[in-house]
Amino acid sequence: MANSSLRNLSHVRSSFRAQGIMRLFQARISRLESGFVQIDARIRKAFSQQDGFVHAGVLATMMDSAGGYAVLSQLPEGSRVLAVEFKINFMAPAAGEVIRGCGRVLRLGRRLAVCELEAKVRKGKTWTSCAWGSQTVYCVRPGETNG
Amino acid sequence: MANSSLRNLSHVRSSFRAQGIMRLFQARISRLESGFVQIDARIRKAFSQQDGFVHAGVLATMMDSAGGYAVLSQLPEGSRVLAVEFKINFMAPAAGEVIRGCGRVLRLGRRLAVCELEAKVRKGKTWTSCAWGSQTVYCVRPGETNG
Amino acid sequence: MANSSLRNLSHVRSSFRAQGIMRLFQARISRLESGFVQIDARIRKAFSQQDGFVHAGVLATMMDSAGGYAVLSQLPEGSRVLAVEFKINFMAPAAGEVIRGCGRVLRLGRRLAVCELEAKVRKGKTWTSCAWGSQTVYCVRPGETNG
Amino acid sequence: MANSSLRNLSHVRSSFRAQGIMRLFQARISRLESGFVQIDARIRKAFSQQDGFVHAGVLATMMDSAGGYAVLSQLPEGSRVLAVEFKINFMAPAAGEVIRGCGRVLRLGRRLAVCELEAKVRKGKTWTSCAWGSQTVYCVRPGETNG
Repeated sequence: MANSSLRNLSHVRSSFRAQGIMRLFQARISRLESGFVQIDARIRKAFSQQDGFVHAGVLATMMDSAGGYAVLSQLPEGSRVLAVEFKINFMAPAAGEVIRGCGRVLRLGRRLAVCELEAKVRKGKTWTSCAWGSQTVYCVRPGETNG
Repeated sequence: MANSSLRNLSHVRSSFRAQGIMRLFQARISRLESGFVQIDARIRKAFSQQDGFVHAGVLATMMDSAGGYAVLSQLPEGSRVLAVEFKINFMAPAAGEVIRGCGRVLRLGRRLAVCELEAKVRKGKTWTSCAWGSQTVYCVRPGETNG
Repeated sequence: MANSSLRNLSHVRSSFRAQGIMRLFQARISRLESGFVQIDARIRKAFSQQDGFVHAGVLATMMDSAGGYAVLSQLPEGSRVLAVEFKINFMAPAAGEVIRGCGRVLRLGRRLAVCELEAKVRKGKTWTSCAWGSQTVYCVRPGETNG
Repeated sequence: MANSSLRNLSHVRSSFRAQGIMRLFQARISRLESGFVQIDARIRKAFSQQDGFVHAGVLATMMDSAGGYAVLSQLPEGSRVLAVEFKINFMAPAAGEVIRGCGRVLRLGRRLAVCELEAKVRKGKTWTSCAWGSQTVYCVRPGETNG
């Protein structure tokens, strides 16, 4: 059990390292459990929209990756995940030092998973929720084709 | 008329130049009309997810900016736009040389606008639609506060 | 070809007749093509929300059925469709004599389809678009299990 | 305080009674707190889709009303609420005796509120979550116009 769980985690981490966009964002996994993933990145000017806040698309990127890896953490090694769709509500302007994308698996089926997504921003010692949404993920298990 | 229209366009362009993320993506506005905006970026390895395709969040970023500017193009100078929410379906893997985010205003109200969003990818001479969705934008007209 | 197409259409109609909610709404299919379905219902007081307009959920019901049957119209007989998710923006209050839900298939994959949904309302001779959105449908082809 | 809270609740109940669709569904408010509303209805054949489960649109209707009233419960008397959009993922087939739509306010701004929506179904003594999503609500406070 413990071993299989560790294997899962390592296969999430190696997939994460293969994402060019996570390197571009200098993002890292800050928490990784079965069914729950957090990804953090230091906020840079390069993430901004026109008013200096973090762009909605940057938040969406962090949230989408977090959700995908939350699903992958519950699938056997050799599985793949594909974003089917996501929907995000933006609740507060994102300003501060660190952004965090969170993904939590709500339902894992044979081929489809549903995740709750959230983005938070840290300013000083305070974390504020700035975006929230849902995501559908398609799961390709080992030996299967995409469909 | 022509002048006021030109003013709108220039105020869209200067807002676009203020987006750090569009510079990071080396994106440019490839088409700008009243109510319709296209944004293009050359695909780089830094945009990739784990399988080498363009990350869903990068597509969402291009689409969100395109939609926001499509709305701004129909508002008087000095207005601001804020993403309320967006929802995107991913229809095909994005692989090729150029990605394009498109935003079209479907409804412009006093304070809320609704846009249709699309992302396309060019491979050789062929453009393929790879993502499609909807967006709600909050409009702050000159002299108003956010609400 | 013509025959198989006719078979499809009849299998859409017989599925439609099995929906209790369409009977409750006294709805009927007003247009049925491969990949496109329209469903109409005469507006009754029983459809209203608190201000007398048609309730958003009634529009959603008509749109969801239209989208599901648009997908079913492109699947072989004996297939089943399941709503994975939908997202709808409400653009104008729905008041008039008839509501129409429309569904159009944008992408049909092996197991997932994406539809564009719309609701219109007729007042006198004028049709107005009052809601618009997207839907993901899961396709179970003959001999397959749900997944 | 207590009084103003009671006033809110009564103004939610009287708005609920004005919804024709809630009467058609024979639905009732089963829980009403500031920022949280549950609506129940006994499942009838007239709610069904083609496989005998409760139609996704019926669930959406119950969820949309619950979310709208959760927002209204936090607004002063004489306010109005309008659905801007909702997005719902369907997680399990709804079969049983009672369906329940739940709405919880996550963020209440000057003009826009965001709710979490859920639908549950009771079969015997067990409640199962069958749908989950998000909703944006436009708030018209007393003395304001729609926007």
